Amino acid sequence: MGERSFWGWGFEGESLTDGQIEALAARVEPLVGSAALDLVVAPSEREIVLLSSRIAPPTTIALWCHVDDRQRASHTYGKSFRDVVRALDRNWERPPDVVATPPDEAGVVAVLEWASDVGAIVIPYGGGSSVAGGVEAPFHDDRPVISCDLSRLDRVLEVDATSRAARIQGGVFGPSLEAQLRPHGLTLRHYPQSFEVSSLGGWLATRSGGHFATLHTHIDDFVESIRAVTPRGLWESRRLPGSGAGPSPDRVMLGSEGILGVITEAWMRLQDRPRYRASGVARFASFEAGARGAKALAQSGLWPSNCRLLDATEALVTGAGDGTSHLLLVGFESGDHPVDGLLLRAAEIVADNAGLFQASDRDTSDDDAAERWKSAFLRAPYVRDGLVRLGLVNETFETAITWDRFDAFVATIKSVAEEALRTVGAWPGLVTCRLTHVYPDGAAPYFTVIAPGRRGARLEQWAHVKSAVMDAISQGGGTVTHHHSVGRDHRPGYDAERPELFAAQLRAAKSVVDPEWILNPGVLVDP
Amino acid sequence: MGERSFWGWGFEGESLTDGQIEALAARVEPLVGSAALDLVVAPSEREIVLLSSRIAPPTTIALWCHVDDRQRASHTYGKSFRDVVRALDRNWERPPDVVATPPDEAGVVAVLEWASDVGAIVIPYGGGSSVAGGVEAPFHDDRPVISCDLSRLDRVLEVDATSRAARIQGGVFGPSLEAQLRPHGLTLRHYPQSFEVSSLGGWLATRSGGHFATLHTHIDDFVESIRAVTPRGLWESRRLPGSGAGPSPDRVMLGSEGILGVITEAWMRLQDRPRYRASGVARFASFEAGARGAKALAQSGLWPSNCRLLDATEALVTGAGDGTSHLLLVGFESGDHPVDGLLLRAAEIVADNAGLFQASDRDTSDDDAAERWKSAFLRAPYVRDGLVRLGLVNETFETAITWDRFDAFVATIKSVAEEALRTVGAWPGLVTCRLTHVYPDGAAPYFTVIAPGRRGARLEQWAHVKSAVMDAISQGGGTVTHHHSVGRDHRPGYDAERPELFAAQLRAAKSVVDPEWILNPGVLVDP
Repeated sequence: MGERSFWGWGFEGESLTDGQIEALAARVEPLVGSAALDLVVAPSEREIVLLSSRIAPPTTIALWCHVDDRQRASHTYGKSFRDVVRALDRNWERPPDVVATPPDEAGVVAVLEWASDVGAIVIPYGGGSSVAGGVEAPFHDDRPVISCDLSRLDRVLEVDATSRAARIQGGVFGPSLEAQLRPHGLTLRHYPQSFEVSSLGGWLATRSGGHFATLHTHIDDFVESIRAVTPRGLWESRRLPGSGAGPSPDRVMLGSEGILGVITEAWMRLQDRPRYRASGVARFASFEAGARGAKALAQSGLWPSNCRLLDATEALVTGAGDGTSHLLLVGFESGDHPVDGLLLRAAEIVADNAGLFQASDRDTSDDDAAERWKSAFLRAPYVRDGLVRLGLVNETFETAITWDRFDAFVATIKSVAEEALRTVGAWPGLVTCRLTHVYPDGAAPYFTVIAPGRRGARLEQWAHVKSAVMDAISQGGGTVTHHHSVGRDHRPGYDAERPELFAAQLRAAKSVVDPEWILNPGVLVDP
Repeated sequence: MGERSFWGWGFEGESLTDGQIEALAARVEPLVGSAALDLVVAPSEREIVLLSSRIAPPTTIALWCHVDDRQRASHTYGKSFRDVVRALDRNWERPPDVVATPPDEAGVVAVLEWASDVGAIVIPYGGGSSVAGGVEAPFHDDRPVISCDLSRLDRVLEVDATSRAARIQGGVFGPSLEAQLRPHGLTLRHYPQSFEVSSLGGWLATRSGGHFATLHTHIDDFVESIRAVTPRGLWESRRLPGSGAGPSPDRVMLGSEGILGVITEAWMRLQDRPRYRASGVARFASFEAGARGAKALAQSGLWPSNCRLLDATEALVTGAGDGTSHLLLVGFESGDHPVDGLLLRAAEIVADNAGLFQASDRDTSDDDAAERWKSAFLRAPYVRDGLVRLGLVNETFETAITWDRFDAFVATIKSVAEEALRTVGAWPGLVTCRLTHVYPDGAAPYFTVIAPGRRGARLEQWAHVKSAVMDAISQGGGTVTHHHSVGRDHRPGYDAERPELFAAQLRAAKSVVDPEWILNPGVLVDP
């Protein structure tokens, strides 16, 4: 894959070429107007200018601690719109003083001990793909910063084929994880959009949303046990297929976003590789009708692995449709039994809800189609970087809401987003919506905003839109995040959402394992 | 249903009659020997002798606070073997001083305030069906005790048919809950064995195991949000179909066993009433083979609603079989689509695993069969009381373990139980095993012990067996409880199981909402 980009998504060799940027410009120009396009050249390594590192690693760990500008710059931010704009602005204001890449769990312990010794904070870093400010340093905390990059903890340590489970190190990225499981005929089958540049530990710490659009939507459900290093010692839960013994320890570590420990290992539930697949597309005259179809499928107990609704514009922009109808992508898969019967029943349900269903062509290999879709899906963030380089404002908002409020909620969010774009002069723009995951009692709508930005003012424009939409989500009863995590960026909505007493409990639970608040201070809770 | 029994399970009118006791004696005599049978007469209300109540409720709440012996005795214990033996011994050593039955949430707040004022502790009480010492007073805490009986908070407050969810008060028992949902065509479909005498709040506080043998095995998965009263105020999570915002607050309240708050309401996910069913029975020559069949079904992705394996003896004792083979009961249900195809595939899987499958007779109504099974299942604890009255030692042990350890684990637990029974002279006895729930990565084995006891020594005999088996479960890698909860009885195993740092975190989280440790002190954690 080549070297990681230090300013944008993924790998350097995968970024859009000049030709691809031109083609992208041609595609978006009719939508936002030609005046909006204002190409920024990507920064080169030589342009990185950082404050000096304030701490020097002790010799015992210096071998795998990095203080060079490239490493520090590339670990300064995650990969949100704001992060990429700041990097394109050649602005790395609060870089980590040191990037530590411990080779093993003992190395992680050593990093925490060193941090405690020198009064530094530690930011656990998996793939750095956060779009919520989850891996950057706090602004109002002047302590030195160590970015603890777990990417060398990249092995599958043990496979239990009988129970279909494996003990896996926290730093492994998606492709390597799957490559290590493949010889056993098993798969974790967890494909967030960040699959190629995010880690198991990151997925667990942020309650990542994965492959399955229904049923087991989050990584949470695949956890048997978790092992983490905390400043107060090892935290490890018992490996179990199920339990009712007190509040689940794992469910406290899941979503803890690095504040309760550095996840070094987990026993994860795996699956047989799918052998049977069936899929199709349903067309609807309105998004609301499509949502009713998705709801009926979600409530049917058929548990489709794919059940993703794209509004007409999103279908057009992503190349999935021609923009005349709203598309519901439906798919089933199994490692055990044919699933054609399930697809037939899904088609009936779609028809009952005024959708036009078409099963996918069996002449093309389903495997190939799935691969093509996956490839386009994984490629989208590179395109996003292209849009950012073209001077546009581009953000996504994702949440979840119960069905009773769904239609009004989606309409409100779209209109609030459009209004906010108009207010900051970022118009004409696009606000599209899709459903990434659906539940019997609600859905996870995902909004994409693409709008013209003003050079030098884009971050202000973005901040206004972001804040307006996040407020509307919170006030409308949605969650601040369905699977992107809270990070530093979503704290206001998170603070409004969780029970106040729960925040105090989380604060207390953190102080138990991290009395000096070394780990990611300011994420989720303040001291 | 009549009045609740103050000494044993359920309702007075449902207890075994003299004739039924005689018939039961005739059934067990060949198993344990006639010398073992030693009938104890059930206590009458006049035999209750209690220490005086040490506190008097203030007039504002006195109307619904009870200090009479019957109420206090009936709230002294749960319904474990030990609890029933103590009641049959006319021994209520540490009764609550007052039984409060608040009519609403404000009443619960008033109880907590009063407790704080007088330095009392509060034990949240749902149906009182705990078999783990979950509702009795701590022995090493001399504070006055208030049993806070939630049974008047028994209403479904709101039904959202669109999202298939309802806002339900914590004190409602199973039958009333289902009766209130039925007019809406919806069901919670949660049938623990205690269904008739346990409450929604109790199910949530103990992570109750329900109707479904696969997939959504615990009540946990049906929770949208929880509302609880704590000494520090209201704790309420946001109603959501799914979220990734930090550690789930609900998952911290789930399994909190009354130590973090009194659950007054929850938004619960409901289901359509099933319209399609298909079921069958598979016979296996060995329990291990049956477990392999159950494992294959659990890993198939067919998600049968029933997938319960009974060993040959358990099948014989419960009347499900003739004792010559091990039985796997398999069932599918759906409110949306026929499930015969799923049963056919299940039958193939069973055959691949050396099981003889027979689909259930379609001439008898499946509904009737399900009702009969449910009725026998719900009736079992009354039979247990009969065994206790007959002088036997009777206990159940339930846990969960991954498949890789399964065979050896089950063999060990059975042999440890038999050895322990022999050691205390409680032999010949029976140790049977069934699987109550199965997972892709493991199963929940449930052991039943029936053995002859010695009058006056039964609790010592029981304690030895209980402790030996619980130690073996813990050392073998199982969980201290899959769905019976921890209570006071399972603390040693729980303490060995949860991460030590998690216990400290739970302690800290409790102190935040309950700084005086009013709520169920000593359950799950000590101060």
